[in-house]
Amino acid sequence: MRYSKFFGKTRHDPPCDAESINAKLLTQAGFVEKVAAGIYTLLPLGHLVFTKVCNIIREEMNAVDGQEILMPALHPIDLWEKTGRIKTMDDILYKTTASGNKKFVFGASHEEAVTPLAAKYVNSYKDLPMSVYQIQTKFRDEPRAKSGLLRGREFGMKDMYSFHTSEEDLDAYYERALQAYTNVYERCGLKSYATTASGGVFTDNLSHEFSIQTEAGEDTILLCEKCDSAQNLEIAEGNLVEPDNTEKEEEMKEVDVERGFSVADNAKAHDVPNYKILKTVVYEVEEEGFVGILIRGDLNVNDTKLENYFKKKLRSASPAQLKELGLVQGFISPVNNPADISFIADNSIKSVVNFVTGANALNKDLVNVNQGRDFQVKDFADLVEVRAGFKCKDCNNDLKEIKAVEAGNTFKLGTKYSENFGLNFTDQDGKSKPVIMGCYGIGTTRLIGTIVEAYNDDDGIIWPKSVAPYQIYLIGIGANEEADKLYEDLKSQGFEVLYDDRKDNPGTKFKNADLIGIPLRIVISNRTMENDSVEWKLRNESEAEMVKTTDLNNKISEFLNN
Amino acid sequence: MRYSKFFGKTRHDPPCDAESINAKLLTQAGFVEKVAAGIYTLLPLGHLVFTKVCNIIREEMNAVDGQEILMPALHPIDLWEKTGRIKTMDDILYKTTASGNKKFVFGASHEEAVTPLAAKYVNSYKDLPMSVYQIQTKFRDEPRAKSGLLRGREFGMKDMYSFHTSEEDLDAYYERALQAYTNVYERCGLKSYATTASGGVFTDNLSHEFSIQTEAGEDTILLCEKCDSAQNLEIAEGNLVEPDNTEKEEEMKEVDVERGFSVADNAKAHDVPNYKILKTVVYEVEEEGFVGILIRGDLNVNDTKLENYFKKKLRSASPAQLKELGLVQGFISPVNNPADISFIADNSIKSVVNFVTGANALNKDLVNVNQGRDFQVKDFADLVEVRAGFKCKDCNNDLKEIKAVEAGNTFKLGTKYSENFGLNFTDQDGKSKPVIMGCYGIGTTRLIGTIVEAYNDDDGIIWPKSVAPYQIYLIGIGANEEADKLYEDLKSQGFEVLYDDRKDNPGTKFKNADLIGIPLRIVISNRTMENDSVEWKLRNESEAEMVKTTDLNNKISEFLNN
Repeated sequence: MRYSKFFGKTRHDPPCDAESINAKLLTQAGFVEKVAAGIYTLLPLGHLVFTKVCNIIREEMNAVDGQEILMPALHPIDLWEKTGRIKTMDDILYKTTASGNKKFVFGASHEEAVTPLAAKYVNSYKDLPMSVYQIQTKFRDEPRAKSGLLRGREFGMKDMYSFHTSEEDLDAYYERALQAYTNVYERCGLKSYATTASGGVFTDNLSHEFSIQTEAGEDTILLCEKCDSAQNLEIAEGNLVEPDNTEKEEEMKEVDVERGFSVADNAKAHDVPNYKILKTVVYEVEEEGFVGILIRGDLNVNDTKLENYFKKKLRSASPAQLKELGLVQGFISPVNNPADISFIADNSIKSVVNFVTGANALNKDLVNVNQGRDFQVKDFADLVEVRAGFKCKDCNNDLKEIKAVEAGNTFKLGTKYSENFGLNFTDQDGKSKPVIMGCYGIGTTRLIGTIVEAYNDDDGIIWPKSVAPYQIYLIGIGANEEADKLYEDLKSQGFEVLYDDRKDNPGTKFKNADLIGIPLRIVISNRTMENDSVEWKLRNESEAEMVKTTDLNNKISEFLNN
Repeated sequence: MRYSKFFGKTRHDPPCDAESINAKLLTQAGFVEKVAAGIYTLLPLGHLVFTKVCNIIREEMNAVDGQEILMPALHPIDLWEKTGRIKTMDDILYKTTASGNKKFVFGASHEEAVTPLAAKYVNSYKDLPMSVYQIQTKFRDEPRAKSGLLRGREFGMKDMYSFHTSEEDLDAYYERALQAYTNVYERCGLKSYATTASGGVFTDNLSHEFSIQTEAGEDTILLCEKCDSAQNLEIAEGNLVEPDNTEKEEEMKEVDVERGFSVADNAKAHDVPNYKILKTVVYEVEEEGFVGILIRGDLNVNDTKLENYFKKKLRSASPAQLKELGLVQGFISPVNNPADISFIADNSIKSVVNFVTGANALNKDLVNVNQGRDFQVKDFADLVEVRAGFKCKDCNNDLKEIKAVEAGNTFKLGTKYSENFGLNFTDQDGKSKPVIMGCYGIGTTRLIGTIVEAYNDDDGIIWPKSVAPYQIYLIGIGANEEADKLYEDLKSQGFEVLYDDRKDNPGTKFKNADLIGIPLRIVISNRTMENDSVEWKLRNESEAEMVKTTDLNNKISEFLNN
């Protein structure tokens, strides 16, 4: 393709309203154009990447026996009433009322379409297992759509749905699907981490998120590089590094202090490490009232773990609530606590002797406080937010903390949707049973955004070979005839070439090449032709080299195949 | 693919609610599944055909320098207010109100999206000409969605838009696009006819419809097979076959008759051919009142031509209106007409001598009526509905009448949308001018429906090779091991094989093969293996033959390449 004829050329400056790296670079380089928040047009460059990403996904889904279909976006509303998601997902659903007062939901997901479809074709155990997928457009009225292609209101998605006679069969297929997902990301140049997660509005059963490391990520992931395992911060478990704290229990004493309200202020005032501060956080738990959570001063409570412990919704008590309970913020202690609340402790406090804590009064602290002797707790539990510094619960290796984008989801749906739509099968024993389902989603356009977040530098995008819009960015400097000829030669070899044939100066073309980020840049000029050579430079390397034109085709093939 | 594992198997009976052949066959054979009126899921077989059709279209659009993009379906409503189509297309637009009271239209067409997009990238004559296309989903709340894939509410479409500096450049590109369209249909096995048409809500300028001959078609097309030209009945022109009517003018006489009200009744009563009846049809023309149109009794008035003549809306006068005018239906005559109306005549009456007509009274006729002598007309015009029997206006060959489906549209949009969105360019003379646009649409899913309407018989679909979901339908009868081996062999040769490996009886499999309509059926059984052969049968031929297994690969390749 000749860049002079290309629609969607690069801009001199990034768009002023782009808040994410991917939106900034993809717009400036001419891959996408914003129509409204979260709604983009894919320009020719963007569409080429999209096609490559979709084809990689397609091949991997076919490899796990997925059969490609295409379901509509218009869903009669009664389907969504049947699953109850018309209520639970109400805030993000686009709806319309058509002629004849017919109401439709625009597909934000397709369980409501695929389950009744399967019910028309699945009768017997002989029809199972079965797996279908589509590469289609989803509509979600996302409250925050400010991350470019990472969070769209209209966005591309591959969603696959599998159907099984038993949990065991689902489990076996689910493992295959996880591997297919790992393959997809790897082929797109991305290292993915499958983390267990809560299923959100999709299911109460097990689910996985696929996380890709990038600074723009909204998620925090704890990695064990030895086990090659990953956990989402929200539910991560790990081994605590125990303090070296072998002293004997001393006598508890109340002391006067002048200090701030934080753990650090407290530790400084008493000249002790943070871990020796006994931190008390008060929560209001739905239907249970107020509860005090005790944890080491150097650690934080993980709200998701706490919710899972109580199986109730909860939130931190407000300053006003604390005051009402007769508690002094920053000086709360389980010892002689004036409020009628119970205390639950994180396991971390078990191994600390002689805690420092407040004395439930301003500028009064207790020192040498010991659990069991000076205060009791109702229960111990794992309530700690695991961060970098914790050890892997399996191999005790250091956990590493990374920011990540969630680039895919898999869910064991079980029989929820089958029961909604009467999707049953007759088993070998002659009995009718609900079909067991799994579902597997990858945002196709989001994946493009993720790749850009992972692969860029100050000059622009750096596409992995597998998903680059073109393989070669050819620049002619003078030597127009030779450049034209080389372009035709390379095309005839089947290489994908974007030929910058414009009359612009070399600097403009070099900047353009870097911004667009095609893996291989080839420059031909009168100077290079003097040595029957071209200049060869990879986007992800800083040095250029000269390559004889006679060696060029082989060298390109070698580069592309490695 | 093994049919035993296939999702979306054939049904024993067609769906009871399918009103068209394509919906009936595509559903029964497992290509599509209806979700709601005009809304379908493409099952794996349907998706395979869809992919092939889209790829053919893609290749042909690329060949005319179309650059593929993907625009969103969600359009901010102000774009549609700007073009006024929020009103003119109101009845078929799906709309939604999203969070923050933002209003969106779901794209029924994409002029409103592509024009502002082009405006961001087109500045100078150097950026033109340029052509972009997308293969995307359209949403139209069609009042009648009863023709299966021929008329959908959510349907696939390829829409291309071209941008030019001059009418001449548009004209030249438009010709190339017409040829690309002809190629698309031809490659899908269809003979297309490009007919000129009115542009509807898209434009007042020239447009073409691409018509495909099928009995299910809603359109009537007049063909000249010698010129290879086609005209839509609505605006068709043709040469009249002049009657052999050389008699002299006789004296006009009033006669009493007892007859019915039709032309045929009249001709029979007077023992003259139909053409000698002078037919008078009264219309009510907007702002003009009533007008009598005179035409030969064997011909009909074409309402579209009449509207174009008056440039006003009109309709036939009702019996009540005729009565009020003092006219007797079936006996109306321009001679001594009692109502105060003027008469316009179709050219066809010029060459007839001694007409018979009513005498403006029940059971009274006039014979030997002659134009100019017995009555005057205000004007002559071409108002005749051209049907089979007319001659081609260019070569005077017989015109043939066929039923056809409209399978594509092309429009010269001119500057309408450019002006709406300020899409201007700076020309070589330094002046700012509006960009001149063309647009070109093919319904992708409609094309699948059209192919089925054109290619079927009592047993099922007969896919053209280029768009068949698979190339070969392989049936094993006994000889399971040999059938499995042949399946693997054929696959390894790169052939697309649907292998009916079920335990069903041969009759069921043969019926299945015919219903699905894959071009080549190969049967392997113990009997065929005795001669180291397989049975070879083409879907569009009735006879089978035996082919040696050693010759099979070559014969298949030869068949596929022809």
